[in-house]
Amino acid sequence: MQFHHHGYVSGEPRVQDAMGTGIDRPAELPDRMDVLIVGSGPAGMLLAAQMSQFPQVATRIIERRDGRLVLGQADGIQPRSVETFQAFGFAERIVAEAYNIAYMNFWGPDPENPRNIVRTARTEDYAFKISEFPHLIVNQARVLDYFAEAAAHGPGRIVPDYGIEFAGLTVHDAGEYPVEVRVRYAAGRRAGQERTIRAKYVVGCDGARSGVREAIGRKHVGGISAHAWGVMDVLVNTDFPDWRTKCAINAEAGNILHIPREGGYLSRMYIDLGEVPEGDNHHVRQTPIEEIIRRANEILRPYSIDVRQVAWHSVYEVGHRVTDKFDDVPVGDERAPRVFLTGDACHTHSAKAGQGMNVSMQDGFNLGWKLGHVLTGLSPEELLATYSAERQPVAQQLIDFDREWSSLMARKPEEISDPQDLATYYLATAEFPSGFMTQYGPSAIVGAASHQALAAGFPLGKRFKSVEVVRVCDGKAVHLGHPAKADGRWRIYAFADAPAAGEPSALAEWAAWMSSPDSPVARHTPVGADVDAVFDVKAIYQQGFEDVDIAKVPELFLPRTGPLGLTDWEKVYAAAPSAWTTADIFAERELSRDGVVVVVRPDQYVADVLPLTATEELAAFFARVLVAHSVPVAG
Amino acid sequence: MQFHHHGYVSGEPRVQDAMGTGIDRPAELPDRMDVLIVGSGPAGMLLAAQMSQFPQVATRIIERRDGRLVLGQADGIQPRSVETFQAFGFAERIVAEAYNIAYMNFWGPDPENPRNIVRTARTEDYAFKISEFPHLIVNQARVLDYFAEAAAHGPGRIVPDYGIEFAGLTVHDAGEYPVEVRVRYAAGRRAGQERTIRAKYVVGCDGARSGVREAIGRKHVGGISAHAWGVMDVLVNTDFPDWRTKCAINAEAGNILHIPREGGYLSRMYIDLGEVPEGDNHHVRQTPIEEIIRRANEILRPYSIDVRQVAWHSVYEVGHRVTDKFDDVPVGDERAPRVFLTGDACHTHSAKAGQGMNVSMQDGFNLGWKLGHVLTGLSPEELLATYSAERQPVAQQLIDFDREWSSLMARKPEEISDPQDLATYYLATAEFPSGFMTQYGPSAIVGAASHQALAAGFPLGKRFKSVEVVRVCDGKAVHLGHPAKADGRWRIYAFADAPAAGEPSALAEWAAWMSSPDSPVARHTPVGADVDAVFDVKAIYQQGFEDVDIAKVPELFLPRTGPLGLTDWEKVYAAAPSAWTTADIFAERELSRDGVVVVVRPDQYVADVLPLTATEELAAFFARVLVAHSVPVAG
Repeated sequence: MQFHHHGYVSGEPRVQDAMGTGIDRPAELPDRMDVLIVGSGPAGMLLAAQMSQFPQVATRIIERRDGRLVLGQADGIQPRSVETFQAFGFAERIVAEAYNIAYMNFWGPDPENPRNIVRTARTEDYAFKISEFPHLIVNQARVLDYFAEAAAHGPGRIVPDYGIEFAGLTVHDAGEYPVEVRVRYAAGRRAGQERTIRAKYVVGCDGARSGVREAIGRKHVGGISAHAWGVMDVLVNTDFPDWRTKCAINAEAGNILHIPREGGYLSRMYIDLGEVPEGDNHHVRQTPIEEIIRRANEILRPYSIDVRQVAWHSVYEVGHRVTDKFDDVPVGDERAPRVFLTGDACHTHSAKAGQGMNVSMQDGFNLGWKLGHVLTGLSPEELLATYSAERQPVAQQLIDFDREWSSLMARKPEEISDPQDLATYYLATAEFPSGFMTQYGPSAIVGAASHQALAAGFPLGKRFKSVEVVRVCDGKAVHLGHPAKADGRWRIYAFADAPAAGEPSALAEWAAWMSSPDSPVARHTPVGADVDAVFDVKAIYQQGFEDVDIAKVPELFLPRTGPLGLTDWEKVYAAAPSAWTTADIFAERELSRDGVVVVVRPDQYVADVLPLTATEELAAFFARVLVAHSVPVAG
Repeated sequence: MQFHHHGYVSGEPRVQDAMGTGIDRPAELPDRMDVLIVGSGPAGMLLAAQMSQFPQVATRIIERRDGRLVLGQADGIQPRSVETFQAFGFAERIVAEAYNIAYMNFWGPDPENPRNIVRTARTEDYAFKISEFPHLIVNQARVLDYFAEAAAHGPGRIVPDYGIEFAGLTVHDAGEYPVEVRVRYAAGRRAGQERTIRAKYVVGCDGARSGVREAIGRKHVGGISAHAWGVMDVLVNTDFPDWRTKCAINAEAGNILHIPREGGYLSRMYIDLGEVPEGDNHHVRQTPIEEIIRRANEILRPYSIDVRQVAWHSVYEVGHRVTDKFDDVPVGDERAPRVFLTGDACHTHSAKAGQGMNVSMQDGFNLGWKLGHVLTGLSPEELLATYSAERQPVAQQLIDFDREWSSLMARKPEEISDPQDLATYYLATAEFPSGFMTQYGPSAIVGAASHQALAAGFPLGKRFKSVEVVRVCDGKAVHLGHPAKADGRWRIYAFADAPAAGEPSALAEWAAWMSSPDSPVARHTPVGADVDAVFDVKAIYQQGFEDVDIAKVPELFLPRTGPLGLTDWEKVYAAAPSAWTTADIFAERELSRDGVVVVVRPDQYVADVLPLTATEELAAFFARVLVAHSVPVAG
C-alpha cells in the first residue's frame, strides 16, 4: 500500500483525499450528471467504486431500496472476484470474514441401503491450484458493503441515492446530456414524486426485471426449465458430518447443494423440489419453508437437521436467459452507446454454480474504466462499443455452462453411471467456476497473438495471472499483480533481457524510447499530469534482487511524481528466487529470456504481448485506444 | 471468524453487540467506575480494548490530549505484537498497511576510502523464522486507531474520554471504590475544571512522566547517558540505494539507524548527535532540524538526501530507567494492589531497538484479563499481584538489552573489530526483539515444569507458539492459535493419544472427566453461563482430518451454546499433514504421542502442561486461579 505521496498521512490510508466532484458532492440527486447507475447490486456497486477513482466524472447511483441490502441472494465468490477485491483494497478483510472452501464432497445412495446417503468422493477445491486467492462463500450484502466503502472512500466520494427508482428513459440524438431519465422517489419525504434528470450515460444494473433493459427495447432470450429448487439459509443442529463442507448430495429422494456460509454456523441449502407440473403457473413458489425442510430431511437420511433459525428462504424455478446485446445501439449501427446493461439485467441463470454475482462484477469492472477514460478525454467514444462486444459472449458461455451444471445437479441417482462423475466434471471445468476462463478476442483493446510465444503464460485477452517477484528496494517478496489497484491506469510490465541494470540491454533501449517524445507516455499523458498518471510502467529483471543495482535502473522505472516530486521506489522487481520466495516469473509464465513487454488493461486483462524492440507496435496499440495529447515527433 | 451464533448477522461481524455497561454507556465521565485507565498510549488502548470484552465491568480511559494521536513516536512492531493484533482482530489489516521488514542491512566505512560508506552485510529479518507473523513498521497512531476501534466495537463500547488529565490520587483502606482520583478538564467547555471521581482500580498508562507513578510514590530508577540522537520522519529524494531497507549505518562521521516506514516513501532516521558535553543541561534538545539533516548527509556520504517534507522530528538523550515495582503495594505487604503502572510509566529506554511500544502492549495484555476476571468474580483478588511480579522482570530485561544494543549502535567504526559484529549480535538475539523471549516463572498462573517433556515445544511461561492444523469440520488448514481471540477465556488444548475418535482412549477418558462435576468446567463456570464461557476446550487428533469421524468425537469438543443452543464445529482439529498444510503439530512442538493437555492463559502464555491422566493436577491448577462456582463432588 503506497501513501504519504502527497505529504504525510496520519489517519486511515484507505480513505483517499476527496477530489473533483467528490469535493462538496451534493447530497441530493442533481439534475445533470455524467453517469447514472441504476441499481446497487454487485455490478452497480463495483461500478460506483470504480467511478469514484475518476472524480472528474460526476457519477450517481440510484437504488429503489431505502438502504443497504440485508439478506439473502448470492454468496459464492470465485477466486477471480477475490482478485478483483484485492484491486479494490479489501481482499484481506473479506477473506478473513468469509467461509474459505477447501473441499467439495459428493454424496450418493448407500449401495447397501439406497434410501440412505453415503459420502462418495472428496474433492480438493480448485481455487488454490489456479490462483493465489481462495474460493469464498460470503453474504452478497457484505460484498456490497465493501464496495460501498471503496466508493465512499475514493476521491469521488460516491454514495448510493437510496429510495429512488428508475421509471423510464429516452435517448436523444444530440446534446451534452442526451439521456433523459425519469425517476420516482420510492421512500422518504418525497415518496411518490417523479423527476426527470439528464445523464451522458446510463448503466442498467437493475436486475432480472430490468426497467432499463425494457426502456431500450432489448430482448431477454431464453426460458425457465420445469425444475424448482428451494433455498434456505439456516442455523441448525445436525448429525450430518459435512455440515461445514460444501457438498453435492444426489439421493433417491432428491438433490441438495449444500454450501456452508461465513461465521461457522450458518449454511445454505439448495433443495431439489422436483419437476414442476405443467400449468403450475409458479404455484411452486408458494412452497412453505416447513415443506422445504421436510424435503431436506428426506434427502439427508439417515441424517437430519434440527433447524434453530431460518435466516432467509426462497423458491425458484431455474431460468436461463441472456440479452441479445448489452447496450442501446442496434446491430450494424455505428454510433457510440449511451445505455448499458450489466449483471442480472442481461443474464439470469441458476444460483447453484456460484456464478451470477461474479460475472456481474466483471461486467462492472469491464465497463467502469471505459466510461472513465472516455469521460475524462483519455479515450475516444468508440471504446464504449467494446463493452457489449466483450461481455455478451461471456454471458452466453455462462448460461451454457450453468445449464449443463444444473442439469447434472438435478439428475436422479439412476441416471448417474459413475458416482465420481460430478466430481470429475467439477474439476475438469474448474477454470470456469474460478472465473478464469474468460478470454476476450482480438479488438482495439486486445492485440493479435503474433508475439504470444514470448509470454506463453500470459494469454492475450485473459486476466493477468500474478506471480511472486522480489521488490528490489526492500527485498520483500510481493505478487507482481497486487500493486495494480483498480485506479483506471494501464499497466506495462517490461520483463528485462539478460544483462544486469546498467549494462547495455534491450530493456535500457526500450526505456530510453519510452522516455522519448515518441512514446505512449509522452503522447497520451495529459499535459501537467504525473508521468505515471495513465501508464504504470514496471521493470522485472531476471537477476536476484541483490544483483539489481537500483542506482543503475533507468529513471523511467523510478518516476518522481506528486506535489513533492517524490521518487516511487516500487516499480522495480527481480525475478530470481530469494530467501522469501521460490517463484521465478520467467519460468512460471514462460517468458522470453530476451525480454518481453506485457500490456495489461485497467481491468487486469492482458492487452498485448510485444518484444522489447517492437516500439512502433506498442505506440500503434495505444494510438488506437488513447487520444493523443501531444503530437508525435515526425520520424 | 465465528458469528451468527446468536442468530443471523447481516452487517459487519467485527462489531459485536453491546452488552452490560456498553448499553447506554454514559458519554460523560461518571463519578464511579470499576477501572480507570489513565492515558491512551499503546498499553492504555490495548487495555481498553481488552476491558471492552468484559462489559460487566465499567471501564473508562482518560487522555489529556483532545483527540487521537496524530504524529511521531514509536513505530516498531514485533511479531509478538502482530500475534496480539491477531487476537484483537486486526492483524491482516495492519500488515497490509505497514512496512513489512524483509532484511536489515549494515553499512560501514569503505576500506578504500573510509570517509564513504559501503554496505557490509545483508541480514534476513528474523521474524519469519520465529513466527507466522512479520516484523512491521507502522505509525503508533495507527496502532492506537486499531485498538480504539476494537474497544469501541467490543461489547463494552469503550471510547476514550479525551481532554481530561490526571491530577492525583489517594488509595483509601476501605470502601467499594477505594481509589479517589482527581482529574482536570484540559480541553472543551469544562477546561480547567477539577473533579474527584472514584474507582476500584486505576492503571497508570501515562508515560515517562507518569503522574500516577508519582502519586503512589514509586521510584523510576536509572538515568540518561551522555549520548544524544536526533530522530526525523522524512519524505526525501536520495541516491542512497537502501532508502527502503532497514539499515544500521556506522560511519566515521557518526551513526544512523534507518527505518523505512509504511506507505512506500517515508522513512525514519535516528541520527547520532554524539556525546553530550557535561553541563549541557539538555541544550542538545534544541538542535534544529537543519543540523540533524546536515549530520545525516555527513554520515551518508557519498550519498545524500534531499528532504522534501519533515513529517516529525525530535531530539532525545538516551535514558534507561525502570520502576522498582509496578503496583502500589509495598514490598512484603500482602494486600491486593489497587493501582498499576504500565508502559513508559515504568520503563523508559532508547527507541532504537523497536521495543517500547511492544513491551507496553504486553503490559496491558498481561493486566487486562486479570482485572476482568477479578472484577467479574471469576478469580480471587490475589491474581492481581502477579502483574507486577511478572512484568517488572521483563522490563528489567528490556532495559539491559536496550543498553547493550544502543551502545553497540553508538560505537565508532574504530571500536568495531568485525564488521559483521552488529549483524551477528542482531541475529543471535532475534528472539528478544521479536518479543518472544519473555518467560514467566512458576506461580499460581504458571505451573511447575514437571511434565514439560510431554510438550517440549510449548515451554511453560512462554507464549503459545501456534502451528497449522486441519479443522476437521471443513478440512481447512488453520493456525491452532488463531481462533484464540483476546476474549478473556482460558484455552485448554487436548492433544489426543493415538486411538482414533470413537475408540477407547486416554482422550476419551479425559473428555468424560472434563464433562463430570469434578472438572474445572463444572466447578468454575458461573451458573447459567455457556459451557465454554470460561474454558475454550479443543481437541487435536493425531490422524488426518478425513480419518477423524466427527460424529464420534466427545461432546465436550462440540459444545452447544448461545441462545439457539447451536453446535460449535470449530474445536476439533487433526494434526497429520493434508493437501493444504505440511505441518504436523505433534512433530513440530515435540508433543507426546500418548497425548498431552496444554493450558494457555487468556494472554496467550502457556500456563500448564499435563498428561491426559493428570486430572487432579488440572483441577488443582484451576482451583488456585479461579473461584469455585459449584462445590466439588466428594471423591
